[in-house]
Amino acid sequence: MQNKYSIGILGATGMVGQRYIQLLENHPWFEITWLAASDRSSGKLYGEAAKWRLDTPMPERIANMTVSPADPAGAPRIIFASIDAAFAREMEPKFAAAGHAVISNSSAFRMAPNVPLVLPEVNAEHLHLIEEQPWRKQSGGFIVTNSNCTVMGPVLALKPIADRFGIEQIFATSMQAVSGAGYPGVPSMDILDNVVPYIASEEEKMEEELLKLLGKLEGHAVKPLAARMSASCNRVPVVDGHTVSVSVKLSRQATREEILAAWNEFRPLAGQNLPSAPDQPVEFAPQQDRPQPRLDRNRGNGMAATVGRLRPCNVLDWKFTVLSHNTIRGAAGATILNAELLASLGKLEPVAEAAARA
Amino acid sequence: MQNKYSIGILGATGMVGQRYIQLLENHPWFEITWLAASDRSSGKLYGEAAKWRLDTPMPERIANMTVSPADPAGAPRIIFASIDAAFAREMEPKFAAAGHAVISNSSAFRMAPNVPLVLPEVNAEHLHLIEEQPWRKQSGGFIVTNSNCTVMGPVLALKPIADRFGIEQIFATSMQAVSGAGYPGVPSMDILDNVVPYIASEEEKMEEELLKLLGKLEGHAVKPLAARMSASCNRVPVVDGHTVSVSVKLSRQATREEILAAWNEFRPLAGQNLPSAPDQPVEFAPQQDRPQPRLDRNRGNGMAATVGRLRPCNVLDWKFTVLSHNTIRGAAGATILNAELLASLGKLEPVAEAAARA
Amino acid sequence: MQNKYSIGILGATGMVGQRYIQLLENHPWFEITWLAASDRSSGKLYGEAAKWRLDTPMPERIANMTVSPADPAGAPRIIFASIDAAFAREMEPKFAAAGHAVISNSSAFRMAPNVPLVLPEVNAEHLHLIEEQPWRKQSGGFIVTNSNCTVMGPVLALKPIADRFGIEQIFATSMQAVSGAGYPGVPSMDILDNVVPYIASEEEKMEEELLKLLGKLEGHAVKPLAARMSASCNRVPVVDGHTVSVSVKLSRQATREEILAAWNEFRPLAGQNLPSAPDQPVEFAPQQDRPQPRLDRNRGNGMAATVGRLRPCNVLDWKFTVLSHNTIRGAAGATILNAELLASLGKLEPVAEAAARA
Amino acid sequence: MQNKYSIGILGATGMVGQRYIQLLENHPWFEITWLAASDRSSGKLYGEAAKWRLDTPMPERIANMTVSPADPAGAPRIIFASIDAAFAREMEPKFAAAGHAVISNSSAFRMAPNVPLVLPEVNAEHLHLIEEQPWRKQSGGFIVTNSNCTVMGPVLALKPIADRFGIEQIFATSMQAVSGAGYPGVPSMDILDNVVPYIASEEEKMEEELLKLLGKLEGHAVKPLAARMSASCNRVPVVDGHTVSVSVKLSRQATREEILAAWNEFRPLAGQNLPSAPDQPVEFAPQQDRPQPRLDRNRGNGMAATVGRLRPCNVLDWKFTVLSHNTIRGAAGATILNAELLASLGKLEPVAEAAARA
Repeated sequence: MQNKYSIGILGATGMVGQRYIQLLENHPWFEITWLAASDRSSGKLYGEAAKWRLDTPMPERIANMTVSPADPAGAPRIIFASIDAAFAREMEPKFAAAGHAVISNSSAFRMAPNVPLVLPEVNAEHLHLIEEQPWRKQSGGFIVTNSNCTVMGPVLALKPIADRFGIEQIFATSMQAVSGAGYPGVPSMDILDNVVPYIASEEEKMEEELLKLLGKLEGHAVKPLAARMSASCNRVPVVDGHTVSVSVKLSRQATREEILAAWNEFRPLAGQNLPSAPDQPVEFAPQQDRPQPRLDRNRGNGMAATVGRLRPCNVLDWKFTVLSHNTIRGAAGATILNAELLASLGKLEPVAEAAARA
Repeated sequence: MQNKYSIGILGATGMVGQRYIQLLENHPWFEITWLAASDRSSGKLYGEAAKWRLDTPMPERIANMTVSPADPAGAPRIIFASIDAAFAREMEPKFAAAGHAVISNSSAFRMAPNVPLVLPEVNAEHLHLIEEQPWRKQSGGFIVTNSNCTVMGPVLALKPIADRFGIEQIFATSMQAVSGAGYPGVPSMDILDNVVPYIASEEEKMEEELLKLLGKLEGHAVKPLAARMSASCNRVPVVDGHTVSVSVKLSRQATREEILAAWNEFRPLAGQNLPSAPDQPVEFAPQQDRPQPRLDRNRGNGMAATVGRLRPCNVLDWKFTVLSHNTIRGAAGATILNAELLASLGKLEPVAEAAARA
Repeated sequence: MQNKYSIGILGATGMVGQRYIQLLENHPWFEITWLAASDRSSGKLYGEAAKWRLDTPMPERIANMTVSPADPAGAPRIIFASIDAAFAREMEPKFAAAGHAVISNSSAFRMAPNVPLVLPEVNAEHLHLIEEQPWRKQSGGFIVTNSNCTVMGPVLALKPIADRFGIEQIFATSMQAVSGAGYPGVPSMDILDNVVPYIASEEEKMEEELLKLLGKLEGHAVKPLAARMSASCNRVPVVDGHTVSVSVKLSRQATREEILAAWNEFRPLAGQNLPSAPDQPVEFAPQQDRPQPRLDRNRGNGMAATVGRLRPCNVLDWKFTVLSHNTIRGAAGATILNAELLASLGKLEPVAEAAARA
Repeated sequence: MQNKYSIGILGATGMVGQRYIQLLENHPWFEITWLAASDRSSGKLYGEAAKWRLDTPMPERIANMTVSPADPAGAPRIIFASIDAAFAREMEPKFAAAGHAVISNSSAFRMAPNVPLVLPEVNAEHLHLIEEQPWRKQSGGFIVTNSNCTVMGPVLALKPIADRFGIEQIFATSMQAVSGAGYPGVPSMDILDNVVPYIASEEEKMEEELLKLLGKLEGHAVKPLAARMSASCNRVPVVDGHTVSVSVKLSRQATREEILAAWNEFRPLAGQNLPSAPDQPVEFAPQQDRPQPRLDRNRGNGMAATVGRLRPCNVLDWKFTVLSHNTIRGAAGATILNAELLASLGKLEPVAEAAARA
C-alpha cells in the first residue's frame, strides 16, 4: 500500500468525482489521499458534503475524510480534476504551476495547443505535448486532459477505421444520458417522456475534440484530422450511457468484413498491463438491435465501447451505432486510464519518489 | 348528422384505431358506423374488445357498438384501415374490389406504383393515381395510403425547402416514441432507462417513402425525388411524438432567413377548409432547445410539425430538428386528412349519394 | 371583457403560476392583468422570464406582459399566489393588509386558525373564517388557501364517505408526480428508474390538512375531524398526477354499493355554475387496473378525482386508489375554484366595483 | 469442478431463469448442466432461444448448451424452477415424483400444506415439511418453494420485529419494478409516465405468503402468524427493485432504538457459510430519503433488504420503507439460497452421490 501513488481529487463531490472514488476503491496503483470541492463543502466530512448517487456504497474511508479547500498547498502531486470550465480555467494552471500533474476531465484546456487531449488507445503519443507547457519546465507540473464524454465512443470506433481506410466525413447524432449533465443537472420535468434536442456547446466540443484526438502530432503541435465532422446532440431519459448514430465517408473503399476486422484487431494497449484498460476497447455486438445503454454500458467494466448495426449508408459510406458509458469510459475512467499511461511512462515520478521506487 | 359520411374502421382496437375514434368524435363530416378488428374481437362490444390507452374517455356510443368481422359485406363505402401489413395485403384489395374507398395507414401498398402515397400538404396531385387502379375501373373502389409515422415530420419540413432550393442529400436520425409500435408493442423491460437503435424495416420505409412523397406524378406513375436519403431509426422512452435530427444538402444555396420563410409561408391547403388541416403545417420554434415531444407534440391539435435548431451543417448544408405526433399527424390524423381531401375533391361520392347530397 | 375580474398572479413563472395562466386563458370571469415573480424576473417580459413547461403554447398576450415586482402597489385587488412558504409568510399578509383578496396555493397559512383552508366541494362554509382576519376588518383584504396537492384527491374521495358513514382511521400512501416539486424541482438523476420514499414535510401536511378540511366550523374556529391519519409519501417517475392508496376505518358499516353511491351522488356544487367545477368531482373507474395517472389525470379538465379498486381491507374496513391532477385539481385549479366560489358569494367585490356591476 | 452439484433449470429463458444463469456463473457449489424451457425453445441452442435482458453478458458455455424438453428424463437431480403457475402445477410434481429435488420460485405450491415456503433467514425449520410429501417417501424427490418477489423485503424486515415484539397488524403498499412481470411483461405504453395500481393476484399472495413465512411449524403443518395483513400493490416505471411502505402494530411497545437493534442484530445464518447469504440480511439506511431502488437494490449482491424511514405511525405503531431486488433476493437468489441451505443440511445428496462425495 505504501508504494501506491497518492491521488488528490478536485471536484470530489460531483458525479464524476464520485466515479473517481468508486473506480479507485481497490485500485492497484492509486490511492486517494486528498479531496477538494467547492468552498461550500470545504471543511466538512466527505460523507456529509456529497450527495452520493452511485449504486455501490460510498467507501467508509472516503466518507470520513475531510474535504480540503481547492488549493495546491497540502495536495498530493497527482490531481484528478473534474470541475466546471470556468473554475478549471483558474484552478488547473495554479496546480500545474505548483508542480502538480493535473489529469483533467474538465473542458477548459482540451483545445489549448500545448495541452494533450488524450485517449490512450487513440493518441498516446500526443502526451509529448506536456513538454511544451511552461509549468513543466518550471516546476515539473503539467496538464493532461481527456475528451468530452460524448466523443469517447465515436473516437474509439473511428480510430481503427481511420488508420486503415482514412476518414473524410463524419456524421454523429447522439442520444445522451442524464448523468452527463452532473447533479442536479437535468430537471426531471425536462426529460420524463421527452427528448431535449440541445446540449449547450456539446456539438462544438464533439466536432473539434474528435478531430484533435484523431490528429497527428507534428513538431510542437497537433494537426487535427482533415475531415468534415457534423454533430447533433440530444438528451434522452437514460441514466448512464451515451448512444451515438454515426455515418462515415472513407478515403478508400472498405468491406463490412474489413471494418469488423479493424475493430476486432484494435488492441493498441495490449501487453502494457494498464489496470483499467479493457481487453478489447471496441466490442462488436452482432445482434441487430444492439448496442443498448442498459444492456451494454458496463462491458469491459464500463471501459469498452460497443458498436453494432454496421450497414451501408446511402449518403456517406458506412453507418453504425456506438455506445459507451459516459461517466466511466467518457469521464472518470478516461482520467484514470490517462494516469495509468502516464505512470507507465514514468511521467508521474518526481525525482525523489522515482528513486524511492527504484 | 344525416348528411355525414359513414366511416368504417378496419383495425379499430389498435393504437391507431383508437386515435381514429378519438379524432372522429365530433368530426363535422365523418361519422363512424362500423368497426372491425381481428377475429378474436369480432362479435364483442367495442368497449369489451378494446384495451383503451388514450387519455380521453372512450366515447359511450362507440363502446356500445358491436365489432364486425373484417368483411366488406355490411361495411360502409369509406374504410379507414390501420392493420398489419400481411393482413392489409389480403384485406385492402378485397374491400377495394367490392367498391370501397380504402384510406389506409397500413404499409402494404404504399410503394405500389398505382397506389397514391399522399400527404395533402405535400403531394395532393398524386391522388390521380387511383384512376390507374383496376378496382376503380371495375367497382369504383380504390386504395389511398398515408406514409409511415416517422416520415411525416421530415417530409413536411423538407417539402417547402425542396420546392424553393432543391434537395440532393438527406440525413435523418430518429428518436421514436413507443406508441408507434402499437400495443402491447415495446416491452417496458426494453425501453426503461434505455434506447433501442433498431426498428424493423423502419429505415427502409423512411428512405423510400420520403422520396416517393417528394416525387413528381409523371404520366401514370410517380417519379421519386432524385436525392440520396439515409435514415437511422431509434426507439426512446417517450409515449408520443417522434423527434428527428435532419441534415440536408440543397441544389441551390439558401440563407437561414430564406429557409425560415419557406417554412413560414408553407400553407398549401389555405382556403380549402379541410377540418383537420392545421393553419400552419410547419411551425418554427425559436427557442434553442426545441422542439421537444412532451411540449410540442400537440401543436395544431397534433397535426402540425414543429421544427427548430436550424443551423449550418459541416457535412451537408443545413441541419435542424423536426417533431411530429406519430399517432395523430403520423397515422390517424393523416388518414383523416386524406379522407377530407378526397371528400373535397368529390372522390368519396358514389353516384347515388352524390345525388342525394346535391 | 370589461366586466371580468382583474387577477394578479404572485409566483407567475413557477409551475403552478404557469397553470394559472393556462387555465385562465379564456376564463369567463377572470382576466390576468398583473404578473409578479422573484426579483430576478421583475422588469422582464414574461416570455423571457418564464421557462414554460406546459404542452399548450404560452398565450401571446401574457408573453408580452412585463413582470412586476412583488409589491401591492399597482396590483389588482384579487391575487392568486403560489410562492414558497417562507416568501408567502412575508408577502401574503402584506397584500392582505393592503386590501387584497389573496387566494393562495402556498402552504404558509393553511393551518392558521383564522385562515380558511378550503376545497369548495368539501368545506365551503369554512370561508366564514375570513371575517376573523384582522386585515378583513381593517382594509377588506383577506387570505384564503387551498390544500397541498396530495391531499386533494383523498379528501374529495373521503368527504362523501365521512358524511354518510363517519371516518375513524385513515391510511394513505402516495405515489407523486415530479411536477409537484416545481421547476427545476426533482433532478432526473434522482427519479429515472427510481422511487424516492421521502418528500420533505409532505406527510405532516397531508395528515393535518386533511383533518382540517374534513373538520367542522364551530364558532370562530375549525374543529378538525377526530380521526387518526397516517400518510406515507413517495415520488415516482410520473410527470403529472398523484396516485394515492387509501384505507379507511368507518364509524358505521358500509357496503360496497353504499360507498359507490356516496361517490356517485356527491355533487355538492350542482346548480352553482362555477366555471371550473367538474360535473362529477369524484368519478369511479370500474376497470380493475384504474385509476392511472397517464390515462385519468385529465378527467373533468383535470378537476375530477378518479377512484377505483374499491375492496375490503383486512386491517381497516375499505381500501381504494384515488388519483388527481396535482397541478390542476391539486393547485392552480383549486385556487381558481376557490376564487369562483368567493366571487359567487360576493366576497370579491369591493364596494365601488360591486356597485358598478349591479 | 467435478464435485459441484449438477443443476437443471426449468424455465431457463425467462427473466428469473436468466438470473439463475447469471448468479450461478462461478458459483462455488452449483453448476448448471441442463436447461429446459417451453416447447418452442426446446432443441435450440440457449443463445438462440433466449432474449437475454441482463447487463452482464450471457456466459459462452450456457449460450452453447442445447435447450432440453421439460421432462425429467435426462435431467439432473436438482431442479431450479421458475415457470408459470399452471405449468408448474403440472410439471413440478412430475419431477418430484421422478426423484428430483425441485427448488422452485413458482407460485403453484407455495401455500400447499405439505410444501415448505422458505426464506432461510426467516423459517429454515419449515423445511421439515418435505418429509410430509408423498414423493419424498417414494422416490426421494420433493418440492421446496420461495415466496413471491414482493413479500421478501417486508418479511425480512418484519421477522426480527416479530421475534422480539410480536406483530398484530401489518399494512404494506408496494411500488413494484417491471422486471417482476417477466418478459415481454408490462407494455411500455402502460408504464411510461404512469403508475398501474393493480397486479393480478399479487395482494392475495403477499397477504397469505407473509403470514405463512412468519408462521410456526407445529407437528405436520405450519400455523400462520395470527396477524391481520393488508397489501396494496402498484407497478411503477422502475426496472429492478420493489419498494414497500410498511406499517405495523406490535404486541409489545418498542422504541426506535430497539427496532434498529433488532434489524442490526438479525444475522440468523451467521457461521453457516452459505455462499449467497448476505452478511447482513437487513441493512438500515440512515439517510431520510432512502432506500431507493436505483441506489440500494444491489446491496449484499442483491440479497440484502434495505430498510429506512423508521418513524411512528398515527394509526398503527411504526412505519418504514423496505426495498429488495425482486429478481435476485425476491426470486433467483432466493431459490439458490434455499438450495444452499438444503445442501448444507445434506438434503440434496442421494445415497450414491453422497457416498461418492465422502
